[in-house]
Amino acid sequence: MSDPTLPADWIAVDWGTSRMRAWAFGPDGAEIGHAVSDAGMGGLAPEGFEPALLAAVSPWLGPDRATPVIACGMVGARQGWVEAPYVSVPCPPPGPAQAVMAPVRDPRLAVTILPGVSQAAPADVMRGEETQIAGFLASTPGFDGTLCLPGTHTKWVQVSAGEIVSFRTAMTGELFAALRGHTVLRHALGAAEGGPAFLEAVADAMARPEALTQRLFSLRAESLLSGLAPAAAADRASGLLIGLELAGARGYWLGTRFALIGNGAQSELYAAALAAQGVIVERADADAMVLAGLGAAWAALEGERP
Amino acid sequence: MSDPTLPADWIAVDWGTSRMRAWAFGPDGAEIGHAVSDAGMGGLAPEGFEPALLAAVSPWLGPDRATPVIACGMVGARQGWVEAPYVSVPCPPPGPAQAVMAPVRDPRLAVTILPGVSQAAPADVMRGEETQIAGFLASTPGFDGTLCLPGTHTKWVQVSAGEIVSFRTAMTGELFAALRGHTVLRHALGAAEGGPAFLEAVADAMARPEALTQRLFSLRAESLLSGLAPAAAADRASGLLIGLELAGARGYWLGTRFALIGNGAQSELYAAALAAQGVIVERADADAMVLAGLGAAWAALEGERP
Repeated sequence: MSDPTLPADWIAVDWGTSRMRAWAFGPDGAEIGHAVSDAGMGGLAPEGFEPALLAAVSPWLGPDRATPVIACGMVGARQGWVEAPYVSVPCPPPGPAQAVMAPVRDPRLAVTILPGVSQAAPADVMRGEETQIAGFLASTPGFDGTLCLPGTHTKWVQVSAGEIVSFRTAMTGELFAALRGHTVLRHALGAAEGGPAFLEAVADAMARPEALTQRLFSLRAESLLSGLAPAAAADRASGLLIGLELAGARGYWLGTRFALIGNGAQSELYAAALAAQGVIVERADADAMVLAGLGAAWAALEGERP
Repeated sequence: MSDPTLPADWIAVDWGTSRMRAWAFGPDGAEIGHAVSDAGMGGLAPEGFEPALLAAVSPWLGPDRATPVIACGMVGARQGWVEAPYVSVPCPPPGPAQAVMAPVRDPRLAVTILPGVSQAAPADVMRGEETQIAGFLASTPGFDGTLCLPGTHTKWVQVSAGEIVSFRTAMTGELFAALRGHTVLRHALGAAEGGPAFLEAVADAMARPEALTQRLFSLRAESLLSGLAPAAAADRASGLLIGLELAGARGYWLGTRFALIGNGAQSELYAAALAAQGVIVERADADAMVLAGLGAAWAALEGERP
C-alpha cells in the first residue's frame, strides 16, 4: 500500500453501498496511497464503519494527530455510519458547513461526512454524485447546463450559477440488471457489445417509449424463433432502456451545454446514444471528479480553521 | 381425489412452466376429478413428464384402454416433453390436427399436446393462451375484436372471423416482480391494494410513458423523504407499468370490442385501468376458458375418429 512512515495530511473516502475507496494525500497534495474495500455501507451496521475504515486507512495515520477524513456517499444515509441529512435543491453541492462528524473511538481519526442532496417534487435523492458535481464545478468554472452521471441509478442534473437547480434519477442500470438476472430474458441476453443494434434500439425507444415491455418480450421471441444472437439481444435491451431514459430526460439534454461524468462501458453507451441525438458531449472521469470534490471540501475545511 | 372405480373418458391438462393442472371427465361430460401439481415444465427433463403426469392422473386411468389426455402450455415447448411446433398467425387457435403425440411407455396413456402460436414480425410467441382463446371463441361465437389475457406475460390478441390475426406480449407482470424482488424498490413496495394511487399512476404513465424509470425511482425517494406508504407505492408501481402497457397496446383496445380473459387481482387491475379509458370490458374466467378450449380439442379429436 503506502509508505507507513509518512502519515497522510488528509484522506478522501468514497463510501458507497457495495464498496469503499480511500485515497491518502501528503502535505504537498500528492496522492500517497489508495485502498479499495468491499466493506460497503450495505453490509455494515453503524458500529462496523470505524473498524472498516481503520482496516483500510490505518497505515496512513500518524500517532499524534487526528487525521482528517472526508467521506461522501451512502455512508451518510440513515442506515449508514451517521446520518448526514440531505440538503434541498436549489443549492450548491454541499460542503463541510453542511457536513456531520462521525462518532469515533480512535483519536487518530476525524471523520467528516458530506450530505447528499434531495428534491421534494418530483421526489428525488442523491448521495455521492453531489461530490462528483462539486469536483466538476471546481474544475470547470462557469459551467451552466446539464450533467449526466450514468450508474445503477443514473442522475440528470441541471446546474446553473454553481447550484444544483433540479435533478432526476432513472433506475435504468438496475432495471437492466434485474431483467437480465431475474426474468425470462436471462435466456436471451448475452454480454452487450455496443454494436449497431444498440443505437437502432435507442431510436426505436425514443420514437415509441410506450412499446417498451412489448419490445423486451420480442427479444425472447426472436431468440426462440430465429436464434437472435445473445450479444445483439443485450445491445437491443440496453438500447431500449437507455432510449426510454433519454426520451424521459429530453428536457435535460436538449439545447443546453452538456457534460457526462462517468467511466467504463456504460458511459460509452450514454455518450454514443446522446451523440446520435446531436448532443455535443463533454466528458469527465468519475473518479477524478469525486476526488476533486472531496479535495474542494478539504480545502474549504482548511479555510474555515481559525 | 376421484373415485378410482370410474375411469375417465378423457383428461384435460394445462401444463405451464411452474405447475400442472389436470381435470378428468366422465363419459357424460361431467368433471369427475381435479389435480394440481407443482411439477411444472420448468423443473422437468423430457423423461420426467410421463411419471409426473401419471402421479397426478393414474387414479382416473382404466386398465384396458389408452385414455386420451389433451394438454396445452409449455409442455409443448422445445425444452418440454416433446416439441409441438408453433403455428403462425393468422390462424385459428390450433387444434388436434396441428398437435403432436407425446412418447409414452404406459399403454394406459395417449397424450396429445396442442401447439402454441407464433408471429414473425413483430416476433412473438404464446403457449397455453391460444387454448384459452379457443375456449373463448367456442363459447362466444362471432366474437370480433381484442382479447387481453393478463399474466406474467400479458397477451393482447386481435381476433377476427375465428382467427388469431395478430398479438403482442408485454412482460409487465414479470417486470413488476423483478422490480419488487431485485431492485432498490424492494424497500419501498408493499402489497398492492388497487387503491386510488393505482389509477392515477395509470393516467400518469399513459400521458408520459417515457418517464417510467424516473417515476419508479421517485417511489424510493418519496419513501425516504416523506414516508410514502408501501401499499400506495406498490399501487403506483403497478399503475405505472400497466399504464405504460396500455399506452403501448392502444391499437389493441381503442374502438374495438374487447374482452379480458383472466382471474384474480391482476385481472381486476387491468379491468379497472381499461374501464378508466372508457373501454367496455367483457370478462371471462381463465380456468373456464382453458377447459373449454381443451374440451373443443377433445370434441374435434373425437370427431376425427373413423
